[in-house]
Amino acid sequence: MTNIVHTIHLQPIGRRTQIRSDQSLLEAAQLAGVEITSICGGVGVCESCRVRLVKGELSPLTMDEQNTFSTEEIQQGYRLACQAFPRSDVILDIPPESLSTPQRLQLESQQKPSEFDPPVRRIQVAIPAPSIDDLRSDLTRLRSAIQPFYETFDVDYAILQKLSTLCRTAEWTIQAIFKDTTLIQILPADPKSKILGLAVDIGTTKVAAYLVNLETGDILAQAGSMNPQIAFGEDVISRISYLINHPEQRGHPSTNLLHQRIIEGLNNLIEKMLAEIGDSSVSSENIVDAVVVGNTAMHHLFAGLSVEQLGISPYVPAVSEALSITAKELGLNIAPSAEVYLPPNIAGYVGADHVAMLLPTIYPYYADPNRKSSNVLAIDIGTNTEISLLHNQQITSCSCASGPAFEGAHIQFGMRAAPGAIERVQITPDHRILYKTIADQDPVGICGSGILDAIAEMYFANLLDAKGMFLKNHPNVRIQNRNMEFVLVPADQSGHHQEIILTRRDVNEIQLAKGAIRAGINILLMEAGLQPEELDAMIIAGAFGTYIDIKSAMKIGMFPYLPLERCQQVGNAAGLGARQMLLSKRYRQIASELAQQIHYIELSNHPKFSDEFSKSLFFPSKELAN
Amino acid sequence: MTNIVHTIHLQPIGRRTQIRSDQSLLEAAQLAGVEITSICGGVGVCESCRVRLVKGELSPLTMDEQNTFSTEEIQQGYRLACQAFPRSDVILDIPPESLSTPQRLQLESQQKPSEFDPPVRRIQVAIPAPSIDDLRSDLTRLRSAIQPFYETFDVDYAILQKLSTLCRTAEWTIQAIFKDTTLIQILPADPKSKILGLAVDIGTTKVAAYLVNLETGDILAQAGSMNPQIAFGEDVISRISYLINHPEQRGHPSTNLLHQRIIEGLNNLIEKMLAEIGDSSVSSENIVDAVVVGNTAMHHLFAGLSVEQLGISPYVPAVSEALSITAKELGLNIAPSAEVYLPPNIAGYVGADHVAMLLPTIYPYYADPNRKSSNVLAIDIGTNTEISLLHNQQITSCSCASGPAFEGAHIQFGMRAAPGAIERVQITPDHRILYKTIADQDPVGICGSGILDAIAEMYFANLLDAKGMFLKNHPNVRIQNRNMEFVLVPADQSGHHQEIILTRRDVNEIQLAKGAIRAGINILLMEAGLQPEELDAMIIAGAFGTYIDIKSAMKIGMFPYLPLERCQQVGNAAGLGARQMLLSKRYRQIASELAQQIHYIELSNHPKFSDEFSKSLFFPSKELAN
Repeated sequence: MTNIVHTIHLQPIGRRTQIRSDQSLLEAAQLAGVEITSICGGVGVCESCRVRLVKGELSPLTMDEQNTFSTEEIQQGYRLACQAFPRSDVILDIPPESLSTPQRLQLESQQKPSEFDPPVRRIQVAIPAPSIDDLRSDLTRLRSAIQPFYETFDVDYAILQKLSTLCRTAEWTIQAIFKDTTLIQILPADPKSKILGLAVDIGTTKVAAYLVNLETGDILAQAGSMNPQIAFGEDVISRISYLINHPEQRGHPSTNLLHQRIIEGLNNLIEKMLAEIGDSSVSSENIVDAVVVGNTAMHHLFAGLSVEQLGISPYVPAVSEALSITAKELGLNIAPSAEVYLPPNIAGYVGADHVAMLLPTIYPYYADPNRKSSNVLAIDIGTNTEISLLHNQQITSCSCASGPAFEGAHIQFGMRAAPGAIERVQITPDHRILYKTIADQDPVGICGSGILDAIAEMYFANLLDAKGMFLKNHPNVRIQNRNMEFVLVPADQSGHHQEIILTRRDVNEIQLAKGAIRAGINILLMEAGLQPEELDAMIIAGAFGTYIDIKSAMKIGMFPYLPLERCQQVGNAAGLGARQMLLSKRYRQIASELAQQIHYIELSNHPKFSDEFSKSLFFPSKELAN
Repeated sequence: MTNIVHTIHLQPIGRRTQIRSDQSLLEAAQLAGVEITSICGGVGVCESCRVRLVKGELSPLTMDEQNTFSTEEIQQGYRLACQAFPRSDVILDIPPESLSTPQRLQLESQQKPSEFDPPVRRIQVAIPAPSIDDLRSDLTRLRSAIQPFYETFDVDYAILQKLSTLCRTAEWTIQAIFKDTTLIQILPADPKSKILGLAVDIGTTKVAAYLVNLETGDILAQAGSMNPQIAFGEDVISRISYLINHPEQRGHPSTNLLHQRIIEGLNNLIEKMLAEIGDSSVSSENIVDAVVVGNTAMHHLFAGLSVEQLGISPYVPAVSEALSITAKELGLNIAPSAEVYLPPNIAGYVGADHVAMLLPTIYPYYADPNRKSSNVLAIDIGTNTEISLLHNQQITSCSCASGPAFEGAHIQFGMRAAPGAIERVQITPDHRILYKTIADQDPVGICGSGILDAIAEMYFANLLDAKGMFLKNHPNVRIQNRNMEFVLVPADQSGHHQEIILTRRDVNEIQLAKGAIRAGINILLMEAGLQPEELDAMIIAGAFGTYIDIKSAMKIGMFPYLPLERCQQVGNAAGLGARQMLLSKRYRQIASELAQQIHYIELSNHPKFSDEFSKSLFFPSKELAN
């Protein structure tokens, strides 16, 4: 067969690209910049890259596809993008659940870290070549060349392995890169070359990565992806359960699939970012430092530490102190001797990501003599939500199991914040339903901020009572299969010509999530003896937290009512904190000091928690909104 | 087929064993304690496990065997022991070249090292279990339990990986093993368990390994094997050439077959020694320290360092300083966090093994106020021979390419020092030829000490002139194919019913070997301005050096004539030095100090070397013997 080029139209995103007949639809999507979820990497196993053929002809169904889809789905034209190849020009519909791009990551926390004292430093040296009169070893001659800069230094083993060959190919002029007083990389001298650092925030659901120029602090590339561990469970507990049920994978990172998948996922992101930089003088060998943050379970799975004890009361971490692990030991595809820094964890469910998040949020208050007596609440919303309160110069933290509902999971038409997602909802006094979608495309689903808006609007328009029960006060509220539901978008207005609906179960999912967060806030305030209005600032972090309407979140009782000027939405603060630590020895020190001084409250043991949680499931009195 | 048991008789060694019909002849040899060379591990590739069927029936020839042997050899009954299975009781002849056992290793340097201050220490601790009131991480609680012994300590990454699981299976009572101030192993508490250290001497031809109890200093097991790198070349230069010709194997240990083979070989020795100890409470996890010595090329290949520069003038090492590399980085199958210590190298051809050898030989003079002004020569004879001279409290060293002739290589009937090897030869005034074989078996070949004796006797009996030319002064000297040769054993007296012969080429090989050594000795003496008779001591080390007749070596001019009471034969001094360093921090320090202070002479650049070498090829005047 000759490789004819076909045009692929991708709906509802409205992009098009051209591929050969030996390239899969998954490749088409990748070429078009449309990120389809593909956890298994395109081998037909994960069944996550579902697309629907609207028009045109594709290669025959594979065995994997026949096993994946029902007869009905096959009739509707469903295919796995990784298994299907074009036989003509094709129009495809990409269902929201197959989209993985956290497109908005790029918008967040672009600011440069304030401190700049990176632990990694580069020097260029000319090494004397050996001769009959200089029979010293290559390392001894390297030491003498470096001696004016570093009197003594350690050398990582991986450097010794390549030293002799590199010195000769580089004709004895090299760049030597030091982490503190350890030689961690040698490269041929090259005036164009850069040294880069990698900052990573591993969320339970999403992973964000940045490549930073270690000599200027500039972000050179960034990338996001789904956490590939999702294939083993959506939340932390289900992933721990997976390992408890697979004892053969425990005990060593090499057998632990959860560890391996996150490492592979990060290696893919690194490759993608290097391609984005597109500079032939910069390769993975130029990435000479890294800071990785994540909640305690993500931290442990990344580091290959045991997580089983995180699944059993009293939920203790294996390790809480800061760690430095060489990239080669982790299998991370950067300079092998680069030391990957993991900031300290606070507790089983308050991890290094929260410590990182505190650096750009609470720490500026804590460190400022004029503001250190402020009462500041910092909330990092995710599948687990961590909350810290600064009060009386003491930080107290807790963790709430808020679940993945805000990411669109467990919501019938929920989707991630990708094009076509409803992100804003308004119900006018005359019952009209207004909404706004991401990238202004026809709606295909609803993301977390849209759901929050929708519920707040439904509550204030009397379509929901304070318990979250539907009230038949709107033409779009109806009973379907004995359950009440609300038609947000009729079929003829949606991108996929299906109705977009919110159900009683959807509302309940959000009540559980917001109730957990609010109970955590209430316990922290209670322990500090504070009323909500005594808060000087409330800082909302996390990708989701950036896009929500704070007012809506207050209306449904997720946050206490506070004047909006006291609220800040700071985006991926954990990612920013990771970059601050990448560029500053002092910030690493601060992170350890903060982690030491934090008072942690384990909510599951707190006597008031279940009361507060039950109360927080309800929506608060509407009068508070005034 | 039922698995009938057959009896296998092994000639000329005279052992027998029983195996099933599904066990190979190689297994039979192993069961009988007869070490047949099997470089490839029994997969039919290395063709080194040749045996000859004398009587009985075996499984049909495999393809590998048909490719290995000539039609003539097949008719003579040759088989590969790893490919052949018995079909009846069987009598086998094992040719000397297939024997690998350095049986005599066990006899050497049994003495216990004198200093005992090992860098590894074991303590037992009870760790407080976590509870709702103690949410500290497992590592934090471990630190608090260890705090009375070590205020602060580092923890190797591999320990963190198993910490949580081990603490729980061991019910919170563990043994913690420290190297200096790093926690390198944790094991469940067990009153019977021991901690062991591994000492290894990697020779170009042979490898010797010891397992030592680190708390008593006792040798618990020892084992020897051929260096499996022999498959890639007999001497250092041919192995370096192999890597120069295989650039795809360079640059990383994982692709370097020479590195991998020595690691595999050591792992086999470790397994064998553990089996010998046969203590169920002792596994590879109990081996928590290691010292490995070898010449510079063996050191570099073991450590995965580049060796190409050792093959090109000016022959500089990649690294000369002492190294500590974790076992997991090397792939050595002992406790993963154990640090493998490699003492310093002196030059490209004087390695860590020579530094180790100096500890029990020259260092006792050097360190003794009453003897430090002695003139002491220490010679470690091997495929490369390293020589050091202590004079004026200064040590000067050099290296001679003596080749593998003393190991029996390149000698027509040469063999290693295994049963049936002629190790002593005497020619009586009435022309009778007397000889003694190892284990008093019928002679099958001649080992290094036998060759040395034979040549010395032939020279003194006027069968050789001073240039090494044969003189027809004995009935056993004859011309064969225009070359002179000497029949040492007639066919009817040998174990394999063939004549054992010494040829002009054999004599020449020994002249080259001994000439290189003597030239090295002469240059060292010349540089020090010493006459041979001014030497207070001459110490001969190395397995071969232990068994030679020193008088014969002097008669052929390998060593200068000295009163025998000034000569010592000390066996595997490098192995003893390795054990001294295993058990003593102070000895490691001394090794580095010695390596620092040694003055190295590169013979290939020395203006007098070729003169001295040419002169030393001849046999010295017989009058000197009086």
